[in-house]
Amino acid sequence: MGIILIGERINGSFKDVGRAIQEKNKVVIREWVSKQADAGANYLDVNMGAASRSVDDFAWLVETVAESTTLPLSLDCNRLDMFSTGLKTYRNTVGERAVIINSTTAEESKLVPLLEMAAEYKAGILGLVMDANGSPQDVDRRIELGGTILAAAMDAGLSPDMITLDPIVMPVKFMQDQARNVLLAVQQLATLSDPPPHISIGLSNVASKTEQKKLINRTFLVMAMAMGLDTAILNVCDEELMQAVATAEILLGQEIYSDAYLKAYRQKA
Amino acid sequence: MGIILIGERINGSFKDVGRAIQEKNKVVIREWVSKQADAGANYLDVNMGAASRSVDDFAWLVETVAESTTLPLSLDCNRLDMFSTGLKTYRNTVGERAVIINSTTAEESKLVPLLEMAAEYKAGILGLVMDANGSPQDVDRRIELGGTILAAAMDAGLSPDMITLDPIVMPVKFMQDQARNVLLAVQQLATLSDPPPHISIGLSNVASKTEQKKLINRTFLVMAMAMGLDTAILNVCDEELMQAVATAEILLGQEIYSDAYLKAYRQKA
Repeated sequence: MGIILIGERINGSFKDVGRAIQEKNKVVIREWVSKQADAGANYLDVNMGAASRSVDDFAWLVETVAESTTLPLSLDCNRLDMFSTGLKTYRNTVGERAVIINSTTAEESKLVPLLEMAAEYKAGILGLVMDANGSPQDVDRRIELGGTILAAAMDAGLSPDMITLDPIVMPVKFMQDQARNVLLAVQQLATLSDPPPHISIGLSNVASKTEQKKLINRTFLVMAMAMGLDTAILNVCDEELMQAVATAEILLGQEIYSDAYLKAYRQKA
Repeated sequence: MGIILIGERINGSFKDVGRAIQEKNKVVIREWVSKQADAGANYLDVNMGAASRSVDDFAWLVETVAESTTLPLSLDCNRLDMFSTGLKTYRNTVGERAVIINSTTAEESKLVPLLEMAAEYKAGILGLVMDANGSPQDVDRRIELGGTILAAAMDAGLSPDMITLDPIVMPVKFMQDQARNVLLAVQQLATLSDPPPHISIGLSNVASKTEQKKLINRTFLVMAMAMGLDTAILNVCDEELMQAVATAEILLGQEIYSDAYLKAYRQKA
């Protein structure tokens, strides 16, 4: 089984999506739903970015995406009331379909109520390995906070398969040594339980403000896959990135080799 | 410090080089010397392939390459008399310059005399983790044979820095599960001693007979670099491969990031 690809594009931080949220323009949103589905997304991330802070707008966005696809969603925000409304809206729109709460941190004030929601809605949860002190700079602290989230989630009744840990990617341009730390953290997080939790990164952040975004993204992604990464939030419409993913999956034995494996990968999508 | 790149192109298995060896055509050889030096090779591999089995031809080839460059060579063959003549010729041509004996296996009948030559000529040695039974298919046996070579080399007085272990890459098209085994072996071989030996692969073999050679080569290389690979025999003239290498070095913190890191990498060459 190959990597789980979460399409990042339905995010209000992108101008077209931000405007679509403000204008309640379903056409733009649906275009990104089908483009990402065609490109091979396994989940669609739904994020308002800075476009709106309204719970009603989030409900509209979740409903618009959910009713346009059979793919499961990743509800991406950081407020408890948003998650509560988002999960309710999603359930009302599509019934019981897989969904990820994206994201919690290791802070109890978020972790405890979000794990309750996860249990209530049979949702998966994605935990960023940070707490009130912010993002850790070293590997050990990332593993410690990953362990905190994992233990709490398992105590709340979630199986490792419903838990995703994210070691938090930093821009290589500004915090170069964090790229290697994230690779090492990916490897170690996967050893925290058996079976292991999923390990994910928000890929695009690594190449932020660089001049070689696509090259850096696809290089970092396959390096992280070698280290055990099995989930990523990324631009599934970047064709070279998808070719790198397909090739890494072949090299890791996650898909069967055929001479036409790139074509097979596109057709699977 | 980034990966050590051994240029693979002076190999009699390539038609133009094979013919040049047979015709003693120095021009063709020198072209590949300067092309690979310009592309960033740190060592030049010298291999007769199937073009000739003559010790004199090997001496000619070694002398021709050595006198055309200041780069150190990797003498690539599998006969003791060839190595002996090659090392002597190299020493006579350029004096004491770095050189790698490429390669030994764990078989005593090769390992012992080649380690004696390595000590005599202050040469590095590259050991393939195989023995009289051939190439191992699993990770454990690779590590065991790597340990045998490493221990014998250290007993012979070589420091880990002069020892390179090669876990033996197989074609993903025909032995798909070996790609992942090689990645795991890279990681474990690097833990055999502290400081560790160098770990190298003959890259091109992974993509043998596939339709996506360049994509598979560069994807596998950066995955192996994430796992600890620090040396590779490859086509340094593949520009996309070199861009992937430069990017992986940035992400591993082996070179300092700058917006123009790709340009800086080309200029360093």
